Amino acid sequence: MDRQLSFWGWGWQDRFPDEATRKGLAMMAGAMIPGAQLAIRPPPQLEQLRLPPVRVDVPERLAAFTGAEPRERAAHSYGRGFPDLLRGFLGDFSAAPDLVARPRDEADIEATLDWAAGARVAVIPYGGGTSVVGGVEGGAVAGSYRGVLSLDVRALDRVVEVDPVSRAARIQAGATGPGLEEQLAVHGFSLRHYPQSFEFSTLGGWIATRAGGHFATLYTHIDDLVESVRMLTPIGPWESRRLPGSGAGPSPDRLVLGSEGTLGVITEAWMRLQPRPRWRASASVRFRDFGPAVAAVRELSQSGLHPSNCRLLDAREAMLHRVTTDGRCVLLLGFESADHPLEPWIERALAIAAAHGGDCPGPKVADEGERTGAAGEAGAWRDAFFEMPYLFNALVSMGAVVDTFETACTWDRFDTLHQAVTAAVMDALQRVCGGGMLSCRFTHVYPDGPAPYYTFIAGGRDGAQREQWAEIKQAASDALAAAGGTITHHHAVGRLHRRWYDRERPEPFAVALRVTKRAVDPAGILNPGVLIDPLAV
Amino acid sequence: MDRQLSFWGWGWQDRFPDEATRKGLAMMAGAMIPGAQLAIRPPPQLEQLRLPPVRVDVPERLAAFTGAEPRERAAHSYGRGFPDLLRGFLGDFSAAPDLVARPRDEADIEATLDWAAGARVAVIPYGGGTSVVGGVEGGAVAGSYRGVLSLDVRALDRVVEVDPVSRAARIQAGATGPGLEEQLAVHGFSLRHYPQSFEFSTLGGWIATRAGGHFATLYTHIDDLVESVRMLTPIGPWESRRLPGSGAGPSPDRLVLGSEGTLGVITEAWMRLQPRPRWRASASVRFRDFGPAVAAVRELSQSGLHPSNCRLLDAREAMLHRVTTDGRCVLLLGFESADHPLEPWIERALAIAAAHGGDCPGPKVADEGERTGAAGEAGAWRDAFFEMPYLFNALVSMGAVVDTFETACTWDRFDTLHQAVTAAVMDALQRVCGGGMLSCRFTHVYPDGPAPYYTFIAGGRDGAQREQWAEIKQAASDALAAAGGTITHHHAVGRLHRRWYDRERPEPFAVALRVTKRAVDPAGILNPGVLIDPLAV
Repeated sequence: MDRQLSFWGWGWQDRFPDEATRKGLAMMAGAMIPGAQLAIRPPPQLEQLRLPPVRVDVPERLAAFTGAEPRERAAHSYGRGFPDLLRGFLGDFSAAPDLVARPRDEADIEATLDWAAGARVAVIPYGGGTSVVGGVEGGAVAGSYRGVLSLDVRALDRVVEVDPVSRAARIQAGATGPGLEEQLAVHGFSLRHYPQSFEFSTLGGWIATRAGGHFATLYTHIDDLVESVRMLTPIGPWESRRLPGSGAGPSPDRLVLGSEGTLGVITEAWMRLQPRPRWRASASVRFRDFGPAVAAVRELSQSGLHPSNCRLLDAREAMLHRVTTDGRCVLLLGFESADHPLEPWIERALAIAAAHGGDCPGPKVADEGERTGAAGEAGAWRDAFFEMPYLFNALVSMGAVVDTFETACTWDRFDTLHQAVTAAVMDALQRVCGGGMLSCRFTHVYPDGPAPYYTFIAGGRDGAQREQWAEIKQAASDALAAAGGTITHHHAVGRLHRRWYDRERPEPFAVALRVTKRAVDPAGILNPGVLIDPLAV
Repeated sequence: MDRQLSFWGWGWQDRFPDEATRKGLAMMAGAMIPGAQLAIRPPPQLEQLRLPPVRVDVPERLAAFTGAEPRERAAHSYGRGFPDLLRGFLGDFSAAPDLVARPRDEADIEATLDWAAGARVAVIPYGGGTSVVGGVEGGAVAGSYRGVLSLDVRALDRVVEVDPVSRAARIQAGATGPGLEEQLAVHGFSLRHYPQSFEFSTLGGWIATRAGGHFATLYTHIDDLVESVRMLTPIGPWESRRLPGSGAGPSPDRLVLGSEGTLGVITEAWMRLQPRPRWRASASVRFRDFGPAVAAVRELSQSGLHPSNCRLLDAREAMLHRVTTDGRCVLLLGFESADHPLEPWIERALAIAAAHGGDCPGPKVADEGERTGAAGEAGAWRDAFFEMPYLFNALVSMGAVVDTFETACTWDRFDTLHQAVTAAVMDALQRVCGGGMLSCRFTHVYPDGPAPYYTFIAGGRDGAQREQWAEIKQAASDALAAAGGTITHHHAVGRLHRRWYDRERPEPFAVALRVTKRAVDPAGILNPGVLIDPLAV
């Protein structure tokens, strides 16, 4: 493949729109976003990048898979959050790692960890590089270390073993969404984990960050799909037994899930699979107001029907995702099964929605092959969902300030949280950018509460966008924390959410993380600063 | 209440059968169990108990809720596993704690921990005392400590707060099953967690041991019902935020779940509730052979139907629980809902069972009030299920060797595991007891594997029962471990499963537990020897 990933922005380089397209987009977006004056800027050129000098030589024992080429270093500098896109677009790669290693197997990873511990070089485990929370950015802590190495595990991308009886597969951590799905499809299976980053993010990254996926209920996080996991720590492998369930002490996997590269490098996992759905039933239900729609979703989440899709979009979100433009909220409902037709499920779900004033022309029910489940409004949603990160590239190139943030809270607190967050962010947008838009959807729902997901877009001032963004982000995060939400439902903590994460977690648990880190990574080389402060080395 | 709990055996003292009943039972059981010669012995009298002297005085600051009465010490000596019943029946209370504290609030618990750390006294958190794995027995490690204190939290037994919108309640850790259900019923809710120990065990114990409960699928462990938890550690409270879900770092609750009293004393938790079911549908399906029944259950577990009951009993288990006596296996299937009628669910489930040769006269479907869901064979099962521990009391009083053990494994390994375990245990029974019976049921099932539960009963030799039991237990545990099962799906590790648990968990995770323990319990006083070795103090 000579198709190249963008070194500064989301996804494929060739997907960045040309000048004419961006001009049209800027006009449209400018008209929709209060206060925004958007104009396009030229994208960065590889020759103009500003990279710091390399501080450590490639060690001989790692030379077969490690290098310091500028494009590699640039591409591994940041994740793909707003501050990342912004710096990348401006050619600022001051946080670039010194070295990029692309291990071919576990032995290469062990050799890298061993060398790095002795050389006092920080190691940043790197999968798809799609973190939006500063999870793969090592530069910031470089001062305490002799250098930074980005450990890109994407060469470990195979489905190694499939157990069709238990419906599970052993998959290497560097496999991307499409890569593992293609290999599983041969066996008639699917992981059915489709985060927005699906195309590029990796299994190891999903596990390390507790990624949220396809299912709106029940199997919301990758956590629920992990049967066992193998992680290489500096003191040896951390590998659990394949088990469907256990009560033998605290779950060892649950300390790996969410460890964000601080305790070791995940190399493979046994994952629970799904057969390809044969039956699908879906519907989009419109509500005039958000309140009754929320009440309907709450009842659905507590019904025991377990829809696979149950995404509520407020009016702006529906417009942004090109689902509707009539100013109403939309609930996208879907059921899928490889075992049974779904009429009774969707009928009951629609009765619940209707009882709350939801308006639905009737469900679409499909047997194998028809695939109408993803057509119509749900299809529009899905397409826009995966395209959204590309739109963010374009918006950044127009000087906009744009980001998403997400949380979860119990149902009893949602109204208050939503009002407080909306007020705080709208106020910050007005103050900082002279206006802007804010939209909300539910990505996942639980019997005891929703996971609301927010998007804001505003016009920025050249040279000030990062500070503008930081002020809005802080207003949003402070409001979430004050209202009892979590600082992240599935984007992870990284370096961006540390302040609020520290307040959220129980202090003795922070102590547990610190002493565990010190014990399994005595040199303190792994992803320093994420979850806990870097150790003195 | 002047009804008293037995100081040596399971449950209420008045439920121990009289001499005539036990004689009849001994005859019947003797006829059913190959090689067994059962004869009744007189139960122990309180005056004859052998208790070691008390090594520490009741400290003045704990005097209001702490004592050293012989009956209290005896009743807090052991859990309710076979070695516990055996020693209790023989009047051997050599492992009795020196003191028993019954704190009235969190301040009392903090005072106890504080005093114990200074006084080098081991503290054994105690709820219902129903551990079958040596989880509440402190005597064994007494040598390293100046004494042992049993910390009985049953006075903290209130439902403090109910959130009907999110369907959750804040419940104190000492509340027993019936105690919390009674308080929740006032609000129209239920926790619907019915382990076999339901009548006596406590919420805190369920959380500390990752108890398995009512639901055969989806919400198999108490883990799934915990929204947040509060635990007092010697370095301060470990309390998580109420959240329906989160991706902010590794889950702090998941390190509390299964910590078995080694990291702190759980004082309360926000628990997810269920409304009282309005619709029920149930069926009992018979299979001539175990193999096709297992295949049916596997397909059911992977169907996405999520039955609340899906218990497969082999022929002996069905007989033991008085469900059937015709030598066939029985699958007890049930669905329940507060939201919708369940015909489509049970019909599809029965079609799956029938496709594997299951024989069912037709489901019972009930609307509110009829309660036929628990009648018939499912009702017989339920009654026998809760009575079984009392039967074990009686069997111990006849000199029998009797115990249960349980595991979980992936579906691809089940046949091999089941054969190996059956062979190993039958061989041990023959060798050690001259024969005996072994039965198997599935208590919970997952898409990727079942949780098989085994019961064995044999005749014992007076004075040798503990060694006989230990040899059978070892044969069973070795076979489970070799076949890739977990040493416990929901009975916990305690002191009995340590050897196998140590082999099962990843070594770096053992390190994590050790350093966490040292950090949050620096004096090493909490439940020493459980999960990890006692620290030097």
